[in-house]
Amino acid sequence: MSDAPKKVVLAYSGGLDTSIILKWLQTEYGCEVITFTADLGQGEELEPARAKAELLGIKPENIHIVDVREEFVRDYVFPMFRANALYEGLYLLGTSIARPLISKHLVDIAHQHGADAVAHGATGKGNDQVRFELSAYALDPSIKVIAPWREWDLTSRTKLLEFAEANQIPIAKDKRGEAPFSVDANLLHTSSEGKALENPAEEAPEYVYQRTVSPEDAPDTPEYIEVTFERGDAVAINDQAMSPATILTALNDYGRKHGIGRLDFVENRFVGMKSRGIYETPGGTILLEAHRGIEQITLDAGAGHLKDSLMPRYAELIYNGFWFSPEREMLQAAIDKSQEHVTGTVRLKLYKGNVNTVGRWSDHSLYSEAHVTFEDDAGAYDQKDAAGFIRLNALRLKLLAARNAKF
Amino acid sequence: MSDAPKKVVLAYSGGLDTSIILKWLQTEYGCEVITFTADLGQGEELEPARAKAELLGIKPENIHIVDVREEFVRDYVFPMFRANALYEGLYLLGTSIARPLISKHLVDIAHQHGADAVAHGATGKGNDQVRFELSAYALDPSIKVIAPWREWDLTSRTKLLEFAEANQIPIAKDKRGEAPFSVDANLLHTSSEGKALENPAEEAPEYVYQRTVSPEDAPDTPEYIEVTFERGDAVAINDQAMSPATILTALNDYGRKHGIGRLDFVENRFVGMKSRGIYETPGGTILLEAHRGIEQITLDAGAGHLKDSLMPRYAELIYNGFWFSPEREMLQAAIDKSQEHVTGTVRLKLYKGNVNTVGRWSDHSLYSEAHVTFEDDAGAYDQKDAAGFIRLNALRLKLLAARNAKF
Amino acid sequence: MSDAPKKVVLAYSGGLDTSIILKWLQTEYGCEVITFTADLGQGEELEPARAKAELLGIKPENIHIVDVREEFVRDYVFPMFRANALYEGLYLLGTSIARPLISKHLVDIAHQHGADAVAHGATGKGNDQVRFELSAYALDPSIKVIAPWREWDLTSRTKLLEFAEANQIPIAKDKRGEAPFSVDANLLHTSSEGKALENPAEEAPEYVYQRTVSPEDAPDTPEYIEVTFERGDAVAINDQAMSPATILTALNDYGRKHGIGRLDFVENRFVGMKSRGIYETPGGTILLEAHRGIEQITLDAGAGHLKDSLMPRYAELIYNGFWFSPEREMLQAAIDKSQEHVTGTVRLKLYKGNVNTVGRWSDHSLYSEAHVTFEDDAGAYDQKDAAGFIRLNALRLKLLAARNAKF
Amino acid sequence: MSDAPKKVVLAYSGGLDTSIILKWLQTEYGCEVITFTADLGQGEELEPARAKAELLGIKPENIHIVDVREEFVRDYVFPMFRANALYEGLYLLGTSIARPLISKHLVDIAHQHGADAVAHGATGKGNDQVRFELSAYALDPSIKVIAPWREWDLTSRTKLLEFAEANQIPIAKDKRGEAPFSVDANLLHTSSEGKALENPAEEAPEYVYQRTVSPEDAPDTPEYIEVTFERGDAVAINDQAMSPATILTALNDYGRKHGIGRLDFVENRFVGMKSRGIYETPGGTILLEAHRGIEQITLDAGAGHLKDSLMPRYAELIYNGFWFSPEREMLQAAIDKSQEHVTGTVRLKLYKGNVNTVGRWSDHSLYSEAHVTFEDDAGAYDQKDAAGFIRLNALRLKLLAARNAKF
Repeated sequence: MSDAPKKVVLAYSGGLDTSIILKWLQTEYGCEVITFTADLGQGEELEPARAKAELLGIKPENIHIVDVREEFVRDYVFPMFRANALYEGLYLLGTSIARPLISKHLVDIAHQHGADAVAHGATGKGNDQVRFELSAYALDPSIKVIAPWREWDLTSRTKLLEFAEANQIPIAKDKRGEAPFSVDANLLHTSSEGKALENPAEEAPEYVYQRTVSPEDAPDTPEYIEVTFERGDAVAINDQAMSPATILTALNDYGRKHGIGRLDFVENRFVGMKSRGIYETPGGTILLEAHRGIEQITLDAGAGHLKDSLMPRYAELIYNGFWFSPEREMLQAAIDKSQEHVTGTVRLKLYKGNVNTVGRWSDHSLYSEAHVTFEDDAGAYDQKDAAGFIRLNALRLKLLAARNAKF
Repeated sequence: MSDAPKKVVLAYSGGLDTSIILKWLQTEYGCEVITFTADLGQGEELEPARAKAELLGIKPENIHIVDVREEFVRDYVFPMFRANALYEGLYLLGTSIARPLISKHLVDIAHQHGADAVAHGATGKGNDQVRFELSAYALDPSIKVIAPWREWDLTSRTKLLEFAEANQIPIAKDKRGEAPFSVDANLLHTSSEGKALENPAEEAPEYVYQRTVSPEDAPDTPEYIEVTFERGDAVAINDQAMSPATILTALNDYGRKHGIGRLDFVENRFVGMKSRGIYETPGGTILLEAHRGIEQITLDAGAGHLKDSLMPRYAELIYNGFWFSPEREMLQAAIDKSQEHVTGTVRLKLYKGNVNTVGRWSDHSLYSEAHVTFEDDAGAYDQKDAAGFIRLNALRLKLLAARNAKF
Repeated sequence: MSDAPKKVVLAYSGGLDTSIILKWLQTEYGCEVITFTADLGQGEELEPARAKAELLGIKPENIHIVDVREEFVRDYVFPMFRANALYEGLYLLGTSIARPLISKHLVDIAHQHGADAVAHGATGKGNDQVRFELSAYALDPSIKVIAPWREWDLTSRTKLLEFAEANQIPIAKDKRGEAPFSVDANLLHTSSEGKALENPAEEAPEYVYQRTVSPEDAPDTPEYIEVTFERGDAVAINDQAMSPATILTALNDYGRKHGIGRLDFVENRFVGMKSRGIYETPGGTILLEAHRGIEQITLDAGAGHLKDSLMPRYAELIYNGFWFSPEREMLQAAIDKSQEHVTGTVRLKLYKGNVNTVGRWSDHSLYSEAHVTFEDDAGAYDQKDAAGFIRLNALRLKLLAARNAKF
Repeated sequence: MSDAPKKVVLAYSGGLDTSIILKWLQTEYGCEVITFTADLGQGEELEPARAKAELLGIKPENIHIVDVREEFVRDYVFPMFRANALYEGLYLLGTSIARPLISKHLVDIAHQHGADAVAHGATGKGNDQVRFELSAYALDPSIKVIAPWREWDLTSRTKLLEFAEANQIPIAKDKRGEAPFSVDANLLHTSSEGKALENPAEEAPEYVYQRTVSPEDAPDTPEYIEVTFERGDAVAINDQAMSPATILTALNDYGRKHGIGRLDFVENRFVGMKSRGIYETPGGTILLEAHRGIEQITLDAGAGHLKDSLMPRYAELIYNGFWFSPEREMLQAAIDKSQEHVTGTVRLKLYKGNVNTVGRWSDHSLYSEAHVTFEDDAGAYDQKDAAGFIRLNALRLKLLAARNAKF
């Protein structure tokens, strides 16, 4: 099978499923496996993944465990938040935005090792396979991508466990039974979907939420914070400068505490079906509100309206896996151009699931009290101008009304 | 002055300002004045407006007091909510959507009475003048529109009060001093702006909010409601069928009680400046969430994404006063077409400022558990199809990567 | 093979390729074949297709030969031309728009006969397979679609001819050798692509063009025609009322004579690759120019600009095969709404490849000589209004310039 | 009159109208006048403007005559052509794109001289006033703009001539009578409008065309040229490298000779009315075709479709005078991003009004004969992939059809 991969870089979590994939790659293709385990802020220890990979026969020099949190927030999350991106009006794209970063590392490591393939553990029904693979192909058109879930015959829990046992893969006790739902987590969000959550008519049980307290359990007293932006990116909380990942971590803490950022959502997958997910995006939800707050005073109307009109397409591209596409980069160029003066501070009130802008100020503000005031404006604005403005805007409507009246 | 209006229909609230306008029209132009006072659900008694108009010399047959609440919700609010319209990402357009209705009645009454002009009490700095006038011109290209605030020399509070006194216009005690901010209200929302609210850095004081309890004062226990939609419009709450205005009134009650729908916002006015407003849209905020919830399972992805991409333009048109424009009607035709199967029920949790969809069901649902399930799907979906899907989506990216690698 | 089709409706041209498919379906699946042969205005006799089908063993009642020209122009071509649809700026979508009609008939005939499948002769590399199949599935989600070119092993000309000979399929002499390029034709256009045309650097030879004389050979004298529209659709030429297909046929004659509508084009296929085609759309090119000409005086600016901005997406949907999709129907609803007054007459000059609007008039005209005139306009327009119009449009730009000057 | 301008920079052509304006500014405001006369390629001698300005009392150091042709093409025309910009589907924006450049020079010269105002000779009915003034305000928010045509009472030809005579302004013999139409010209185009052309039903007489021979009079033999692009801009013709203005001049010569680039057009002005113009854009028409030709093989589908969808808005912004706006700059950033590999050569056939791409080639080509070929593609493309691609694209349509069938 000349087409079989010889050396594969696997996105490896250290969990049961990707351990099975690891072994399957070895047995199915007889290929050398290199593992990549990323700290995306998912909140799990990564060193056990090293031990497990070694146990499964991976050479130490083939094990890559990398803290990518700063890269993730700086190069992926923040650019996306400059756009106020929401998929289908509500979803903050927490899973979608992590996939291209993982593919980028898989491809980079493949190049380092002279590997000819990468592999991932996403199923054949979801969006993640698309995101992983489009990103990988966009970065290296000659790379092979192996998606075991689409290839193998381990199509039931029983078969998976049998394979694991037959191959001496340790099975944690709590993995014997099936999880009641599937979870993905990173510094931006935690998503839960599948099985127990598949009926969109039924409220998700409280135990699904892992990342936030419930609004009911959040403090009874509001808390105020101030978030400072420079050129569209958050740079400080309460005047304390922080790195991108640090700031998102801190916002997550605020969000968790105040029960902010829960979303029960039915979305349209790129592969054509609807699916229901429970999302928790505590820090991201605060960040979106804050970013909108600072744009309100620093962004020009024309720029803002253009951004708003481009956003749905931008969000759809990210959701569908086209981060590394020329059209996403074109939109990013436009969006980034708009952010040059999005600099200033927003004051937010956090309270039991709510995050609200209550104040914003900036040296770069375009808000002109002189123009808007109900008081005497000392000639800043001539109300008579409005008459001409309206009459010319109305002209075509009047010609139209006169025409239509004839028929 | 042959160009002077002879008979004018005035949008008359019965308050001091429009009473001054009424008298000013009589004295400035010597014209006959007809008053139109609408019950838009602003929550004020209207009969005093009749008495006041009579006192100012308006003939009984020239006084029009009309309950337009059902028309407002059915023909303006509901069509707009089919679009999930948000101006600049956040504002539910509560003031904007009422203006065309008022203009429509002004023009209709002008035609009944053979009047040659209409008049409104909006200032020369705001959006409302534009909305009133574009609507009026679009409905009758030969109508004159009189905007006294842009014409007269009553440019200070003192001069206004002097004019009122000189013309025997009664001045309520609490109108002697200036209001600390300006308010507009209707069944959809209450807005507050100006004066005390002009500094966007300062949190709005609690007393500004008139339409909702503060989240802190809302009940400590969540409340669940179910809203049913037919073809995109809300038709029932908790299985109880209601008329459009009744349903919005009921949602307002829920929203008020739970502190839902407050917004502190800096927006871009059509006339070119930024302004800060405090909006309360209790029922509308619930309605938007519910409508999105039912669309999640009943609206096709292609239709939904097109709607999302059209929405910003649609909202901008309404904000700018182009309700009666061919382009708004074109967008409405597209949006309405999408709503044919937006029928079903959404379950919402209301709690201290939060409104969240927690369940949705419909005979028209497109959600297919058979396709999405983590369990065996009995052949509904062939995971192998995804491989081809991804490869063809990737093809252009691969060709691109190969090309770019050469340079 | 329980999944095998039992009764198949085949899009049958009567040519060698679809005759091979017909026989292959019979032998491969042992299924009953029903043929559908459409007169789309491709300019070929259809009765030979009947004889050939009978020869191949198709029962007379299973042979459908239908003249769909009026349906094609009325329900597909004209709606599309209301949008001024151009794919990638230049292509008039002549092939794309015919495919959904064919699928519709295939599915309708399947329902009449209780057939469980339809089949087409499009290859696995092109757009047509997508268009046929998306349309079929959108009209009947349970239909099977068979695409022999993706299934069989007749992967070379030699194998095809061997199969034909082995199955007594008559082979016309001129079909022994391979055609130098592939042709698709209908009332709207003729396309040629492949083989001899695959190098996009080389000019297509003159013999490729089958539908138009070359501009060099066209008459040396211009010809003028007048096309009349009602609600966006052409209804008469030179005051002579005609049916949709008749009018397009007549425009084709004019276009052919004057060498109008040739296009040498490299386009992006939906399946991910670029391809080069030579298109001839004589009547369609005239129709587009004429439609634009009548819209110039009858369509409002707001409506026109919205149409222009929606057009690329609309064209892409048709190109990609999504005619029967909710988003195409939404866009169509918006476009059709705009055409209510697109009624009037356009005068066109045809000359050696050029078609130019030289005059247009309409009772529905919005053109106001009173407003635009360089002469005294008798007060139709107050130039002073422009000052206010400009100042308010400039306001945000001035605030922006003042802000930016600080940094 | 403290608000009166003290020093004004006038856009001065040397013609009668701007000479009258010059004198009027001196007499009306008693202000110092500085003249700016630009060589935009309009094809007129500029030195007479110097003599005339001196005659009217302008100090030599206050007379600016500048050749801006390279700047015009490099910084305005070429960036616009990267977008394939067409206003309302047909107009190449030849007048619109020159206005911001003129305003930029007016403001720069005002800053050099410490002038507080600029003045232009555009009327109050057209678009140019808007373009001049928005540009000026965007570049200097404190500048005054004087538009004499909106201010003075010289509202008839007779009054203008009287004013000229009373002020010793020389009147060329052929300016005594009124011109039958108004003309604007620069290196990109010549426009003619007004008076004799105001009836859009009547064909424009041949004598209106000043920039191109008629197609009927063009050579009977086609001419082929090759235009080479680098990063979206034309850099050579027939392998001969040229500067931007030189290349546009050369293309104009080709276009003039072959009767290319005439347009009879009714457009929607920003100020609300429709107007009819005759445009000649010989070189620009060739350039657009060539740019599209090279994009066909070098631009990715995703990038191209995004560009196409942004273009109408981009063109509208330029037409409306918003060249110096953040939203135009955002769109430009996106468009420029797309042009990084738009490098290669296009072969064009010029013949009697037609310009057609007949070949294109590039080292940066994305066209892959290996993928598209009708011949054996040696495994470049697996036709089976198309089945999965189609099935997943169809999935939502099938779910939709199944749902809709129930109602």
